[in-house]
Formats: sequence, C-alpha cells, structure tokens
Amino acid sequence: MSDNKNKTLTVLGLGDMGSALTRSWLAAGYTVTVWNRSPRRAPVGAAVAATVAEAVGANTLVVVCLLDDASVRATLDGVDLTGRDIVNLTTSTPAEARALAEWITARGGNFLDGGIMAVPSMIGAPDSGAYVFYSGSARLHETHAEALAVPAGVTYVGTDAGFAALYDIALLSAMWGMFAGATHAFALIGGEDISPVEFAPLMVAYQQAMAGYAFGTAAQLASGDYTQDVESNLAMMATTNDTLRRTALEQRVSPELLEPFMTLMERRVAEGGGKESTTGVVDLLRR
Amino acid sequence: MSDNKNKTLTVLGLGDMGSALTRSWLAAGYTVTVWNRSPRRAPVGAAVAATVAEAVGANTLVVVCLLDDASVRATLDGVDLTGRDIVNLTTSTPAEARALAEWITARGGNFLDGGIMAVPSMIGAPDSGAYVFYSGSARLHETHAEALAVPAGVTYVGTDAGFAALYDIALLSAMWGMFAGATHAFALIGGEDISPVEFAPLMVAYQQAMAGYAFGTAAQLASGDYTQDVESNLAMMATTNDTLRRTALEQRVSPELLEPFMTLMERRVAEGGGKESTTGVVDLLRR
Repeated sequence: MSDNKNKTLTVLGLGDMGSALTRSWLAAGYTVTVWNRSPRRAPVGAAVAATVAEAVGANTLVVVCLLDDASVRATLDGVDLTGRDIVNLTTSTPAEARALAEWITARGGNFLDGGIMAVPSMIGAPDSGAYVFYSGSARLHETHAEALAVPAGVTYVGTDAGFAALYDIALLSAMWGMFAGATHAFALIGGEDISPVEFAPLMVAYQQAMAGYAFGTAAQLASGDYTQDVESNLAMMATTNDTLRRTALEQRVSPELLEPFMTLMERRVAEGGGKESTTGVVDLLRR
Repeated sequence: MSDNKNKTLTVLGLGDMGSALTRSWLAAGYTVTVWNRSPRRAPVGAAVAATVAEAVGANTLVVVCLLDDASVRATLDGVDLTGRDIVNLTTSTPAEARALAEWITARGGNFLDGGIMAVPSMIGAPDSGAYVFYSGSARLHETHAEALAVPAGVTYVGTDAGFAALYDIALLSAMWGMFAGATHAFALIGGEDISPVEFAPLMVAYQQAMAGYAFGTAAQLASGDYTQDVESNLAMMATTNDTLRRTALEQRVSPELLEPFMTLMERRVAEGGGKESTTGVVDLLRR
C-alpha cells in the first residue's frame, strides 16, 4: 500500500507550522486527517480526528509537528504505531531525535526525522527556497518522496535519525552568528548620519560574497592542514581586532557579540596558530 | 593640472597591500613613484624615491598605505603637503581618519580616506569583487576617479573623512560574526560522520539566502517600529536558543561564540520586546 498513490496522510499538531503544512497538502489534492490537542484550528478541507489513535489509524503516513520532543512522546504514548511511517517535524536536538527513533521503532513504527529550514509563510510557496532536512529511514524517505516534496524542498542527509536536527541546528547557529555580526554593524553606524536602509545592501552583498570563506575552512578541516591555501592568515586577521575594538569604543558600542570570537582568534595565535586560517578556532570550541 | 591626464602618482608604503596597489597602477600604464621605509621591495618599473619629501614632491596624487595611523603621521611629519591630494589607505578607526584629515588639511594638503574591502591578491584583478570605501574630499574623489578605479572598485560614502573607516569596520564586524557562526556550526558536526566539505555548500547557501534579513532590520531601524513586517518574532526566535544550547551540550561544543547574542535576545524579550524582530538588540549594544 502506498500513500503516494492514495495521496492521504495524517498531520498531528496544528500550530502555525502544522497548519501551513496541512494547507500545502490540501492544496496539492491530498486527503489530510488532522488532530490537535485543542480542536479549534483545523484548516478548511481537513478531516478532524477526535483522538490521536483515530488520526494515526487513518493513514500510513503520519506527520508530527508539535511543540517539543516531550509533546511527541506524550501524544503518541499508548497509541498503536504498528506499520506507521512517522515523520517527525517537531524541533528537537540530535540526541532527542535518535532516542525518539528508538522509541517509535520499539512500538512498531518507522521513523524519519525532519528539520524545517523555513518559516510557516514559506511552506508550499513555489520558489521560496524553503526546504527540510530529513534523516532516518531511507525506505520511508523514498516511499513518501512525492508527499514530502509538497510543502518544501527535500534534503536527505543520511540514515542517522539525529542528522536532520544536527544540520538544522548547525545552520541556525551559522545564521545566529551572521545576525550577531549584522547587529554589531548596525549599532556602529547608529550614531552617525548614515541611513541603515542605504547601508544594508552593502553589508548584505559583503556577507553573501564572504560566506564562501567556509569552503576553505571545510577543505582545511578535511585535510587537517589549517595552513592550506591561506590568503590572509590568522595573525594578520587578529591584528584587525584592535581596530574593531577601538572603533566600537569610539562609536560607544559594546563589542560583546564579537569579543568571544576575537578572543579565541588571539588565543589560537598565542598558541602558535598564526600562520593558519581561522579553522583552528573550531578545535578550541570542542571539548 | 590633472594627474589623470599625466597618469602619475606616488605610493608611500610597500607592504603586501601597497605593493599590490603599485603593481596594479604600473600595469595600467601609470608612472608610479614609490617610497618605503626599507628600500628593498619596490615593484619592477616603479621609480624609487630616496626620501618621503622627494616622493611626495613628485606627484600631486599621493597614496598612503602604511602600518597604522601613527606610521602615517610619523612619515608625513615635517613634509610639505601644500596642494597635495593625499589618499590614505592605511587601516584606521573613524576618529583617527577624521583627526588625520584635520592634520593633513592644516598642512595644506587635501584628504580622502579609504577602507579596502579586499586582500592583496584581489587588487587589480578584474571581477574580483574588490572595492574601496572612500570618504572625505569629494573634489579629490572626482579628480582622481580614473586612477582610483584601477586597483579596485570605488564606493564613495560621503564627505565625512571617518565614514570610509566606519563602513569598512562595520562590514568586517558583520563578517566576523558570520565566521563565528560558521565556526560554531563546523564544531557541531565535528564529532560526527559528516564531511565538512559536503556540509559547507549547504551552510554557505543558507547564510547567503538569510543575509537579506538585514534589509528588514534596516527598515525597522529607519521607521523606529521594530514590530514592522515581523515574520518570526523575537520571542519565537528566542525559544530556539534552548535547542541550540542543548545541541551544543550534546555535541560537546562550547556555545561561547553565540551565547552573547542569545543572552541579549532573551534580555530584550524579558524587557517587553517579544513581538519585535531582532532589531531591538541593536539598541542594547549602544551605550
């Protein structure tokens, strides 16, 4: 039996994201059975199940999008999952996803975890760039390829159920850092007669151009040679920190968002890594 | 008299950057007089001046690319700058550039400051994307437009001599933050069977796609309404911090590079900014 042919699935959880997912499948002609802890918010066209057991029993493919990992276990506890293909899109850590995979499998279900790289408004929107990292059962990923591709792009990153969450959080971390840098930059120009609206395109273009620096970091991590193809070495980069700090002081901006990175750059230089790129700082973070 | 017609100029300082600049002008057919504290490194084809005074006296346009602001003053102190067009490409803070502008002007010179957004290998290379922020004398910027465009693109940001340095350092700050985020991301995947070389393109594409978030921040800073066009509000974003922290703990990665940003996000939420975007964090940095 294939849900792809039947175009039917179940969605547990109708928060902003669960509702957006449900609407995208309804719009694509799927029959969607939904369940939510409070019954009020079902999108038009969805079949509302009275109980979790009824919702899970209705379809092989069961998409779960709840508040957190604890909610998933509380919701599915005691429900017959035999032969169910559970796709968990609830935000979780890698270890939580791995433990949940075991928990689901022990109850007869199959498990695929997903990390959504999008906000709800991007779901089901063509060319939004939204996609979902999936990891876990390759069989489940293949069987439901068509359904999974409806709300957003699909990027499968392996059979380890924790990898989807890990990739998700790693990219969010990279984004947080980028936002922190932009925040500091906006603060620096804040006291001056400079329009942030005219400044932003310059900064955005620069961040986009320099993002590719990570390709060099990746190559160095893979080879283990952190001096490989170094253009501007860490000692040179670290000398810029002094100008950054003095500029922050002049502009009355706290350097606290960038201080930890500058401190680790300098620590690596002090420990002999001056001819490297910034790659050695990765090692300083690992315990 | 126009140096553009004569295609002659002077370069003070033959470090990596000064040498690259000199080579780019020589390649473009300029007659270049150079001076360096130690005489050894002049690019082939440059006329080496024996003294600073001789170098400065040789041409109206004098490009200065030395170690730091103190070096510039030490080098030009006592030299006749009457009618000279001084373009300072030495790394400095905004306040240093402003003070140097006064210092040069008081000695009869004209002043344009520049902040180079490139490493030496990008100088004079077509389509490298390299450019220089210039600010200060608009007359000087216009008179020497042709010469200034030889080594890299030209972005003039106003008559305030400090703005070039400010834009330069603001973009470097934005880049440092982005690198810090990438560093944390690489550390997170470091203990797993994940190739950094396969991971990098996903992260680079994500940072490039999300860089445009700054356009929203800029619009909010300009309007003063930090809840304007908010897609995912700060309270929602801050709930992700818990997952980020727990993932770091699981992966044995120190969260120190991202902790200050997460802390300020949470502080802003606690102070009533939960319905805003991250823009309010900019204000928390300003003293």
